[in-house]
Amino acid sequence: MLVNGEQGNSISIRDRGLLYGDGVFRTLNAMHGKARHWPLHYQKLQHDCTALGIACPDMPMLSTELDRLLLQHPDGVVKLIVTRGGGARGYAPPAQEATPTHIWDISPLPDYPSDRATLGIKARICQLRLSRQPRLAGIKHLNRLENVLAAAEWSNVESSDEDIAEGLLMDAGGNVIEGIRSNLFLVLAGALVTADLSRCGVSGVQRDRVIAWAAQHNMPLQVRDIRLDEVWHADELFVVNSIIGMWPIRELEQRSWIDFPVAAKIRRDLDGSQT
Amino acid sequence: MLVNGEQGNSISIRDRGLLYGDGVFRTLNAMHGKARHWPLHYQKLQHDCTALGIACPDMPMLSTELDRLLLQHPDGVVKLIVTRGGGARGYAPPAQEATPTHIWDISPLPDYPSDRATLGIKARICQLRLSRQPRLAGIKHLNRLENVLAAAEWSNVESSDEDIAEGLLMDAGGNVIEGIRSNLFLVLAGALVTADLSRCGVSGVQRDRVIAWAAQHNMPLQVRDIRLDEVWHADELFVVNSIIGMWPIRELEQRSWIDFPVAAKIRRDLDGSQT
Repeated sequence: MLVNGEQGNSISIRDRGLLYGDGVFRTLNAMHGKARHWPLHYQKLQHDCTALGIACPDMPMLSTELDRLLLQHPDGVVKLIVTRGGGARGYAPPAQEATPTHIWDISPLPDYPSDRATLGIKARICQLRLSRQPRLAGIKHLNRLENVLAAAEWSNVESSDEDIAEGLLMDAGGNVIEGIRSNLFLVLAGALVTADLSRCGVSGVQRDRVIAWAAQHNMPLQVRDIRLDEVWHADELFVVNSIIGMWPIRELEQRSWIDFPVAAKIRRDLDGSQT
Repeated sequence: MLVNGEQGNSISIRDRGLLYGDGVFRTLNAMHGKARHWPLHYQKLQHDCTALGIACPDMPMLSTELDRLLLQHPDGVVKLIVTRGGGARGYAPPAQEATPTHIWDISPLPDYPSDRATLGIKARICQLRLSRQPRLAGIKHLNRLENVLAAAEWSNVESSDEDIAEGLLMDAGGNVIEGIRSNLFLVLAGALVTADLSRCGVSGVQRDRVIAWAAQHNMPLQVRDIRLDEVWHADELFVVNSIIGMWPIRELEQRSWIDFPVAAKIRRDLDGSQT
């Protein structure tokens, strides 16, 4: 673990990342000493920092630190957090640009059942509705209580269903937005459909990669509001993120799917690509 | 500064307070070794912890720690943070109830101009609109990016106006909700009016005290949606929180007020009360 380039596993209790969730993060997959799609993650990090007015640490420095980390821990889930740093008490960002805090952490790769990518997962629709905040939409920021509450819906003891691998989130307007920790795609009438993230949701690297794949393969792609009704009628559903890769959904509430030919093709293409 | 009862000024980078803003906080005023309205703050803390499913540290323990803190620092702004603690990677709260992290910090009392309570402040209407999330409404949680972005509207260099002491926040539906760091009251046609906080906003201790004051003094009080138009037509406006106490608003955008007889009476009564 590195905090501002030094070995360490703690931050100040006055860091705005803790006080206000005033920061952003990325989660990457590292295998054999290589972090997958690091340049794409850096682009997102930079975009998100800019959106919040945080000075993004520069890429050469972060890359050097990442290399150091991977030398010690070649495989794992890498988390990079950038907060606005410390400063005077109060919500207002410091008048003098604060020195951001940047944190690297690495955890063991999760041991998800390997057949999830091929056989698909069981998912549910969360009761929690995402709020709409255009100023924060798309950003992978540290204000993640909605995700926590949504994940808690079926992880507490009474309603525990360990078989459920992801929850789908709708917004207050009834649109289907994403998974708790993933982006969602529908295969619908020969097109790929994914949610418009201009009011809520997190725009992930893997979502961008699927969108790019569609362009390369002349597959129609729609980024737009998605009604729940369309989810039930989709030919295929799949979720993506940088750790799980891609999981098709085989069971969602009372509806089930058996084949995922489009998802399978995209997954094979994306798994083989290093970009 | 105390972290889990021990002297310390740092927390783990794996604390969910940092990772997800998964926690709550209180801010209290300490003078002459006494934290004002600590029992009321504890009630709120407990309420907010329960709402998020966090095990609230018990009051005797916290009171003992607070006393220790105040022995060393009898005057200041006391901040108490309770997070869900550490645990496994991922949004879902740990299946076994995590041990919450609790943090005490104390900062010097701010040196606000003393005439703000009598002459009133200049305030502005923020451009940012609060999102609506009934599951988090009223809770003083650590997801405060909306407050940060709102405060940044006039604290950055180009549009800096140091004279502006508070920003008022509206929600996405056009209702006036609160100040960035305070609750708002209107004196309107002989009644006190404050916003319904069931969809957004933070319910503060001082707001409760004003509401209790109204009941004691048979002053009509309405907790309801407030349209911006009503703000312009209010006889008085004032904001409250535990650090500033009460500040009337003398100037808001193009509108100004001169006298604040109701605010002044409430302030005198509340300042004199220790409950």
